[in-house]
Amino acid sequence: MNNFIFQNPTKLIFGKGMIKEIASQIPAGKKIMITFGGGSVKKNGVYEQVIEALAGREYTEFWGIESNPSIETLRKAIAQGREFGADFLLAVGGGSVIDGTKLVSAGLKYDGDAWDLVKKGSYTDTVPLGTVLTLPATGSEMNSGAVISRHETKEKYAFYSNYPVFSVLDPTVTFTLPDHQIACGIADTFVHVMEQYMTKPEQSALMDRWAESILRTLIEIAPKIKENHEDYDLMADFMMCATMGLNGFIAMGVEQDWCTHMIGHELTALHGLTHGETLSIVFPGTLRALRQEKALKIMQYGERIWGLSSGLPETRVEKAIEKTEEFFRSLGLRTRLSEAGIGEDTIMEIEKRFNERGVAYGENHDVTGAVARRILEAAK
Amino acid sequence: MNNFIFQNPTKLIFGKGMIKEIASQIPAGKKIMITFGGGSVKKNGVYEQVIEALAGREYTEFWGIESNPSIETLRKAIAQGREFGADFLLAVGGGSVIDGTKLVSAGLKYDGDAWDLVKKGSYTDTVPLGTVLTLPATGSEMNSGAVISRHETKEKYAFYSNYPVFSVLDPTVTFTLPDHQIACGIADTFVHVMEQYMTKPEQSALMDRWAESILRTLIEIAPKIKENHEDYDLMADFMMCATMGLNGFIAMGVEQDWCTHMIGHELTALHGLTHGETLSIVFPGTLRALRQEKALKIMQYGERIWGLSSGLPETRVEKAIEKTEEFFRSLGLRTRLSEAGIGEDTIMEIEKRFNERGVAYGENHDVTGAVARRILEAAK
Repeated sequence: MNNFIFQNPTKLIFGKGMIKEIASQIPAGKKIMITFGGGSVKKNGVYEQVIEALAGREYTEFWGIESNPSIETLRKAIAQGREFGADFLLAVGGGSVIDGTKLVSAGLKYDGDAWDLVKKGSYTDTVPLGTVLTLPATGSEMNSGAVISRHETKEKYAFYSNYPVFSVLDPTVTFTLPDHQIACGIADTFVHVMEQYMTKPEQSALMDRWAESILRTLIEIAPKIKENHEDYDLMADFMMCATMGLNGFIAMGVEQDWCTHMIGHELTALHGLTHGETLSIVFPGTLRALRQEKALKIMQYGERIWGLSSGLPETRVEKAIEKTEEFFRSLGLRTRLSEAGIGEDTIMEIEKRFNERGVAYGENHDVTGAVARRILEAAK
Repeated sequence: MNNFIFQNPTKLIFGKGMIKEIASQIPAGKKIMITFGGGSVKKNGVYEQVIEALAGREYTEFWGIESNPSIETLRKAIAQGREFGADFLLAVGGGSVIDGTKLVSAGLKYDGDAWDLVKKGSYTDTVPLGTVLTLPATGSEMNSGAVISRHETKEKYAFYSNYPVFSVLDPTVTFTLPDHQIACGIADTFVHVMEQYMTKPEQSALMDRWAESILRTLIEIAPKIKENHEDYDLMADFMMCATMGLNGFIAMGVEQDWCTHMIGHELTALHGLTHGETLSIVFPGTLRALRQEKALKIMQYGERIWGLSSGLPETRVEKAIEKTEEFFRSLGLRTRLSEAGIGEDTIMEIEKRFNERGVAYGENHDVTGAVARRILEAAK
């Protein structure tokens, strides 16, 4: 096991009816800016519960943080927050609203243009941030990361600031989510876990088993959720998996990959694909292209998750990859670039961007532009 | 799943050579009281590393926090800390040293006798506390609990204060631990997990799997550790299991039991037995006495941990209990009261104490004095 430092200070407030707890979590006297995406929170009762909890408090509302939150929108939020004098932020929405609000929390403390902070990669002088999560997927509610896009240049980068001070997770708010968003959330969670797990075996017995626990739970609940996503316990399990999948709990002392995400971000930046769907397309390609390097871990995964305990190694590896792709397809997601109408010009552009950036991703730091091409070609 | 609030702010600093990190974790200008148990840290190099890291800092040393730390000793530590003006505590040792120092951290802020705080059960106005762990077992390095004894009255109670601000876990410091302490640490960890898991099925798919992950890892590594407890990765896995077994990560939204611990504490108070060994004696008794109430969960445990997937339910339950007792015996621990020379008078005393206290333990709040008797009789 590698040496590591772990700390996750976010207070998780979980369960039905818990949105009202925000009243006691935000210190008295704070000037609160509440940030939202589109209007779905007005339909599912979340907006009403938040406003009721904050009755008598001083707040302003900022609306319109979009999927793949853009610097263009977030600059407006920073301007509004500055004018209002916001000293507490409450993000109410999915991962995009939370991600965007993380940049706002840093931007409010920074004199220049917030895009500087994104290019810098991290900034931890921030206004405190609480969240009310409406879509389980990104894990942003319990980590310090965010992904921010710039539309004018079709760029999308990771950015790190502080952990939310609290996050409220009420599974009932997920009951009205569209099927496709749930499918993307499950795929996103699955691949988050894989980015931390699908590297090398025998680094940490416990971290491996914890990661496998999330994978197995997702595989178990996904078909049931497809039938009925108003089952409280199922949706609670899903919410738990999404949050625990990217809060550092399964990453202690182990190598991480993240090349699928880096390639996926490019597909979103270039084609506007939903994040979860980029992953269901790219990840089977990653496994196919890197089947040699990852063979031992793919075999462990195949055996423990899919029961593939006999046969030749190469066959077991192939079957584990097939099972993974089948799982994504069972969610109703596309798993091939061709299905999304993406071809050689995009592969070329991504290869170029990786090469220009001069960094190599993956647990072995060897996923260069040429390897990204191999992955994308395996996902054709 | 039940509603819950989770937060664990402890910074975990894990790995070989990480003790030196305490220098950067304790703010400059702090007056540090370092607390120790006996002299083992002078033999294994831990004392030297701590003192080297704190060169040039203002500190005092308090020695002699014993196993099952006593209020009698801790009053002396509080007096010394007060005289010194300690505003930071560094506990260097196992769970007893850390537990005891938690009471010191509260006692330094409290004007009366610290035993008042233990009787009160919790006190969160504390001096900040960091730890350097030397014995994986109690999980105290990453939770807010402590267990404090009073020798004169043979009492032992749980006490809650704040989480350590940081804890350093270097697996190499465990290489020199005596076999029996390691065995007790494994049993302690195993039963901590069981107290949070062995209740009712279908509360949380993920929490169940995470708990089972720790149990499986312990069962897998225990015989290897018996052969060689200087294997870094094995001892790192053991340390991880112990810390993750009682830091709240596997307890989110699920019922907990803790009756085995409450009975075990009485055995320590009355007979001075090592904590881990009280658990290896009491826990199989708990399973036997409560086999009806816990039948469904015992069957899940038997199937997932011991591969007991066929046969009549009653047989499967019995086999799972036998496997558990065998596991403790494989560690070299006693599993029967009679082996420790404990008989009817102790059973009677514990029954009386439970009844006098007027509280009932267990996930159903039904482990009264009479049920404690049934458990102890099943452990004869």
